[in-house]
Amino acid sequence: MDNSSLTTGGFTLPGEAGYEALTLKLAKKWGADVIRDSDGTQLSDEIIQSDYDIYSTLCLVRADNEWAKANPSKLQQCCVMSQPVTADSDSTTVDLLEGYFKEQLVINTDDNPQDWWQVFDRTTGLEVDKTNWSFDASTGSVTISNTAKWHRYTVNFFCYRIWEEISMYNHVTNDWGDQEHLMPIDPIHPEARDQIRDYLTKWLDAHPHTKVVRLTSMFYNFWWFWGDPAKQKFIVNDWGSYEFSVSTAAILKFEEKFGYRPTSEDFINAGLYNNSYKVPSKLYRDWMDFINEFVVEFGKECIEMIHQRDKLAFVFYNDHWIGIEPYNERFKDFGFDGIIDGIFNGFEARKVAECPAVSVRELRMHPYLFPTGVNGEPSFLPGGKPTDECKRYWTDIRRAILRKGVDRIGFGGYLHLVENHPDFVDYIENLGTEFRQLRSLHHSGAPEELPLKVAFLTAWGNTRAWACCGHFNRGNYYNEAMESLSGLPVETVFISFEDILQGGIDSSINVIINAGLVNDSWSGGEYWSKPETIEAISQFVSTGGGLIGIGEPTALRHSDQYFQLAHILGVDREVGLTRAFNRIEFQTASDHFILADAASTLDLGKTIDNIYLTDDSTVVLSANEKSPAIATRAFDQGRCVYLAGHLYNPANVRLLLRSILWSAQKENLLDHWSCSSIHTECAYYPKSGKLVVINNSDEDQNTTVATPRGTIKLSLQANASKTIDVTP
Amino acid sequence: MDNSSLTTGGFTLPGEAGYEALTLKLAKKWGADVIRDSDGTQLSDEIIQSDYDIYSTLCLVRADNEWAKANPSKLQQCCVMSQPVTADSDSTTVDLLEGYFKEQLVINTDDNPQDWWQVFDRTTGLEVDKTNWSFDASTGSVTISNTAKWHRYTVNFFCYRIWEEISMYNHVTNDWGDQEHLMPIDPIHPEARDQIRDYLTKWLDAHPHTKVVRLTSMFYNFWWFWGDPAKQKFIVNDWGSYEFSVSTAAILKFEEKFGYRPTSEDFINAGLYNNSYKVPSKLYRDWMDFINEFVVEFGKECIEMIHQRDKLAFVFYNDHWIGIEPYNERFKDFGFDGIIDGIFNGFEARKVAECPAVSVRELRMHPYLFPTGVNGEPSFLPGGKPTDECKRYWTDIRRAILRKGVDRIGFGGYLHLVENHPDFVDYIENLGTEFRQLRSLHHSGAPEELPLKVAFLTAWGNTRAWACCGHFNRGNYYNEAMESLSGLPVETVFISFEDILQGGIDSSINVIINAGLVNDSWSGGEYWSKPETIEAISQFVSTGGGLIGIGEPTALRHSDQYFQLAHILGVDREVGLTRAFNRIEFQTASDHFILADAASTLDLGKTIDNIYLTDDSTVVLSANEKSPAIATRAFDQGRCVYLAGHLYNPANVRLLLRSILWSAQKENLLDHWSCSSIHTECAYYPKSGKLVVINNSDEDQNTTVATPRGTIKLSLQANASKTIDVTP
Repeated sequence: MDNSSLTTGGFTLPGEAGYEALTLKLAKKWGADVIRDSDGTQLSDEIIQSDYDIYSTLCLVRADNEWAKANPSKLQQCCVMSQPVTADSDSTTVDLLEGYFKEQLVINTDDNPQDWWQVFDRTTGLEVDKTNWSFDASTGSVTISNTAKWHRYTVNFFCYRIWEEISMYNHVTNDWGDQEHLMPIDPIHPEARDQIRDYLTKWLDAHPHTKVVRLTSMFYNFWWFWGDPAKQKFIVNDWGSYEFSVSTAAILKFEEKFGYRPTSEDFINAGLYNNSYKVPSKLYRDWMDFINEFVVEFGKECIEMIHQRDKLAFVFYNDHWIGIEPYNERFKDFGFDGIIDGIFNGFEARKVAECPAVSVRELRMHPYLFPTGVNGEPSFLPGGKPTDECKRYWTDIRRAILRKGVDRIGFGGYLHLVENHPDFVDYIENLGTEFRQLRSLHHSGAPEELPLKVAFLTAWGNTRAWACCGHFNRGNYYNEAMESLSGLPVETVFISFEDILQGGIDSSINVIINAGLVNDSWSGGEYWSKPETIEAISQFVSTGGGLIGIGEPTALRHSDQYFQLAHILGVDREVGLTRAFNRIEFQTASDHFILADAASTLDLGKTIDNIYLTDDSTVVLSANEKSPAIATRAFDQGRCVYLAGHLYNPANVRLLLRSILWSAQKENLLDHWSCSSIHTECAYYPKSGKLVVINNSDEDQNTTVATPRGTIKLSLQANASKTIDVTP
Repeated sequence: MDNSSLTTGGFTLPGEAGYEALTLKLAKKWGADVIRDSDGTQLSDEIIQSDYDIYSTLCLVRADNEWAKANPSKLQQCCVMSQPVTADSDSTTVDLLEGYFKEQLVINTDDNPQDWWQVFDRTTGLEVDKTNWSFDASTGSVTISNTAKWHRYTVNFFCYRIWEEISMYNHVTNDWGDQEHLMPIDPIHPEARDQIRDYLTKWLDAHPHTKVVRLTSMFYNFWWFWGDPAKQKFIVNDWGSYEFSVSTAAILKFEEKFGYRPTSEDFINAGLYNNSYKVPSKLYRDWMDFINEFVVEFGKECIEMIHQRDKLAFVFYNDHWIGIEPYNERFKDFGFDGIIDGIFNGFEARKVAECPAVSVRELRMHPYLFPTGVNGEPSFLPGGKPTDECKRYWTDIRRAILRKGVDRIGFGGYLHLVENHPDFVDYIENLGTEFRQLRSLHHSGAPEELPLKVAFLTAWGNTRAWACCGHFNRGNYYNEAMESLSGLPVETVFISFEDILQGGIDSSINVIINAGLVNDSWSGGEYWSKPETIEAISQFVSTGGGLIGIGEPTALRHSDQYFQLAHILGVDREVGLTRAFNRIEFQTASDHFILADAASTLDLGKTIDNIYLTDDSTVVLSANEKSPAIATRAFDQGRCVYLAGHLYNPANVRLLLRSILWSAQKENLLDHWSCSSIHTECAYYPKSGKLVVINNSDEDQNTTVATPRGTIKLSLQANASKTIDVTP
């Protein structure tokens, strides 16, 4: 690919049959080199035979609905917990699908309920003996005998999924009316794998003009239960959860490999399921590994078929991405040529930019060209402001790809929707140029990074590098901090507690960030009861490491403190049982390196309350009444920073950078290619001799850039960037 | 006693030798009938031989310091956890008293440490084998061998207490200089009991003019650790905790009775000790019962000695009150004639007013006549405003004693401090008159109460009726709600989970209030995992009972919900693990009985966040963004109200009253002797035919009183009360 042009290339346009002139006009204006189809659109021969490369979307598990209809026992499944029913007598009937969306789920009656299902008294937490319940297929209900009045009962049962969820979403969102519901087949069955092989062969025959097969994605969608439309449209949506890979067939295959059979309750976990906020159990980690191995094995076979036709295989890092895990070891075995993700934010851009083992990394921008955006905004509906929306996303994305480059950008959806938005059409032309400028600098050589390494410590580690449980989970301290980091000039890695337990803390790490809420996977939950965790991090800080705790870091109801590293952080949290105890009083320090850029009031977002000092050597920099909000402390040769909250905004981005530098004892690095205005950031590309300065705000900004050869003053218009030649 | 005079009687004045004229002048002005001494003051013969009755304070356990000094092994003890020490090698030395106040505690080396002490690795939670530690009496330290680097170690050890804490507080507060430190002896030892008998005999001989022996109080003080003055003055203060009744001798006596020996860790509980916020364990409840039995047994003997001299015995409901437990069954066995407490608030007034088995109930008012008040205010120091202070307390107390009368009020401390405060002297004269008016109405017959019974449900139940863990614990939802209830015309009882488990819910109860934070004794903690608790309350609500939950009611990490009665209350709380789940959307209802008096913004104090609906039948009346703050729901024949917080203030008092009436399905009772202005309240005394209306605010108020015979309009000056004859 040609990476030097600033007007053409690296841009994927969604074409639309019936709008050929528009397609070709915008392809030219936006400098597209690729035209793609989308879910709901087709490319006409006129488009396919134009000079553009063609990406064709392909979702193998919902591709042949006739086969799916003919083989209902080969549909994908999932394990479901019925809504709890309170017993009002000694016999209790549970309507299994009550509250769920009956166009998504049907009860699996093929596999004997008595073999697979479980009934629980959730009041006691005990399983109900199988002799005490029976399933009535005609009513879809389970009747439980000998129930205790006022106890709450649930049934874990298996369902087939009869409407593939992404297609269901697109169908409902775009009012596709009586168009047939597509169903997802499960390649865990050999018959389904055969069908997919056959289908792919025929599909490749039928798409001679396709250059890139854009797989959307492999086999299993992220977890997404819909509700009874009369009550609640959505029940749960978790981009990271493997719950839709669960089926009776997969469980049997797992049993063959691991020697034991997971129960339904292993997937239900008293209604928590295995959601991304739950610290993953050993069983669930094994399950993920098992699915990953399977998806890579069969996925590799499909990709080889594509390669044999001299086509490239790109994968969409979303939708049916479960089991792909680009940051895991096996990913390289797929042989993918490229990866694409639909993103809104900086951290998601980094997730794509740092994806290993592919040649092409592409960002699908938002707003998606649907009337209603993926995040619910009325993008192309009356009242929608697609240009403002796009500018907002691009501002956050741009600061991330200033640090790590990507190869392409693009859009998806119905192209004709842009017709009435000439400002959007012009804006995207300019955005494309700005993107190509950055891309070209990266291709010449990486920008300078500060010589320090920051590690996020969570229960997920690198498996959720630059990821959380979907798009930006606002209010999640880990996600907020990750978004702030995504545009900072520091090396960022992601480590798990299992990494530490198995291999200790890599000596190259300067600062560890632990950000989350008690018991959640981001904070670490039960891992904080393991002495090895405490030992490793104590040793790390003691010998000069930096520790930044955000929210409820190291928190667990265990031992004589709540933050398990309270004695190192210098703060702990009152959680209601120690209110009789007096606390050390403190004065707020007026002057500290990490607050040097801060305005008089910092907005840390929603902060954790009832923080108190465990030691009078803790220095409080900011407090909400008597509860410290920002505190620092030295521990042996190391340094800690506690932040009671974090919200991605310019002031907090700077606060976090300064916290990293201070805790790493590298304060002097702040004078290294940094901007005086917190609304501006910059990157220096030594190979090109170029300095890029960006204005992240909607207002004009003056800023002074500190460089090794003195300062550079400059003005930037709202949202603008400037590239300056600073060759020595 | 003469209860009819409005100018004299029912008033206890603190006399002061050297200020005889002032004493007698104020006794007359304030209408005192009793003169008392205080800690730090004495009465001269001139005062003693005046016409006033004499109360003499007596604290038996600190009365004879010579005996205490001669018998150091008979001093009171306690069990202490050393401050945690982080191991930096395989040998770790713990300075036991580091951080504690060495004028309060000395290490008990008389009882073999190896028999009594325990060392813990708090990082693992495991006890260190006794062969791995040794005590060095010369340095007061324990050295632990084979310690794991970075683990945290603590030692549970026994101390003698060498400075009786109340005397210590008065000494330090009033700069008593080199006056000898008084030491508390422990009547658990037969020798100490003999000494107390001897002392009391001699004391009674020496006090022929004393009419009332005011015991302060019996033997064991509430729990109060002081800290190293250089670091932290106070460590912990818990009015309800029995930790200062713990000693090696008492443990042996307990073992004789119960057949097993509590360990030091039973009293330390990983640093939580047995504080009032902790749900009491079975062992701790047994311990309280054991101490209570002992205190009643020996206390009764002392009181009989007093009675034999034709004196009365009054007890102070504070200081060394541990083991007295006026609300327990045994209290009547003491034979006390009266009870006195030093109080600031309405709930404390009710605690005294409803004390069973005594003839006289007396409130000691604040500010205490010390330069610095007991709550830290500069009462009689320059800048102090004792009149404003007293008016504030009296306003809260008055609304409580409007409902339940007491017999006396009084003050304590140094009388001469009022000399420079003529406004205070005048204010107290008026306050005395107002008090006597209320007293006289009560003596004629009780005021009307609404025909409904409200029960606070906590782990403490009636043992902490009208009490929490000291004076007003602001922010504690149970305490805030109790203060609001203290002035409402409803019958209020206090029940425990053990009451429910053993005897169910009394059918006379209309409404149950559960208010607290997860795991704490007020909310109930682990009791919510007991099916019997769930069953009993479900049945209660189902058959028409009302349930009011405040804060984190019924909360526990157990089952598939966090509020264990979420399915009844209609709300639950997100605690970080279920963020992937969508929630039911709601509209805020604009019109509801319980909000009819509410201003546009209610201040519920600090509220619990992340509340969500579990059911679409829940009606949300107020919300903080997406988190309901006030919600109501019907469950079968019963009704529930959820309040995300509660703060004692006029609007919330009315809100709570309305919540009670609504949940009890007795809304019509609101028209029964109620005031239109939320700043005013009233009580009707049918025997006297009098209506008393009080203005709780610092501003004049107009109010309309609903009576069975129509409305009465009236105006009240700031803080004033009016008594109106409404005889039919």
